[in-house]
Amino acid sequence: MAEDQPLFFRKHVFCCTNSRPPGHPRGSCAEKGSEKLRNYMKARAKELGLGDVRINAAGCLDRCELGPSMVIYPEGIWYGYRSTADIDEILATHIIGGGRVERLLMPPEQTKAKGKE
Amino acid sequence: MAEDQPLFFRKHVFCCTNSRPPGHPRGSCAEKGSEKLRNYMKARAKELGLGDVRINAAGCLDRCELGPSMVIYPEGIWYGYRSTADIDEILATHIIGGGRVERLLMPPEQTKAKGKE
Repeated sequence: MAEDQPLFFRKHVFCCTNSRPPGHPRGSCAEKGSEKLRNYMKARAKELGLGDVRINAAGCLDRCELGPSMVIYPEGIWYGYRSTADIDEILATHIIGGGRVERLLMPPEQTKAKGKE
Repeated sequence: MAEDQPLFFRKHVFCCTNSRPPGHPRGSCAEKGSEKLRNYMKARAKELGLGDVRINAAGCLDRCELGPSMVIYPEGIWYGYRSTADIDEILATHIIGGGRVERLLMPPEQTKAKGKE
């Protein structure tokens, strides 16, 4: 097999913006404000000149209980975030700095919801 | 920095299901049937028992002209696909077999649309 192409985006961020009806047992990222926070992150990334980074909307990422959910590829790091301050820290520490925002990392043991979308 | 957690999904597939108004100069993946094809891929992955793979819906991936667009992480491989036969081949060759479907790979040089969403 030939070598793969270079990554099209240096960092590809997916923010769940899935919405469920009120009262759904799993809740949803949208009802926790994920759309607004994703829009903020996209705008901030642009202001910061991060042209090789894409802040994408996504459907259900299946980790709703820990959301709003975000996964950053190619490294596959998952964050739960609540505020624009959280977003700023992810941009500064992870996207620009190459580190991890330890306090926002999703715990690896949360797997029981898989397949129950 | 501590070592990262293992990947939550062995393969995380994002299919653009973004819709734009008819006549938009960039078109959209939805108008090319991406929602139906993504639903097919999700159902087939389940039938194939691929429990460690997620077939996700996504907003605009910014490669509309080559779409319907799909990107598979963590490897960051992009495909343009048109039919359920294309999906079957991606599942068999890439997701299960670990190879690449060369005929469906997006060309790396398509970058001019970046930032024009």
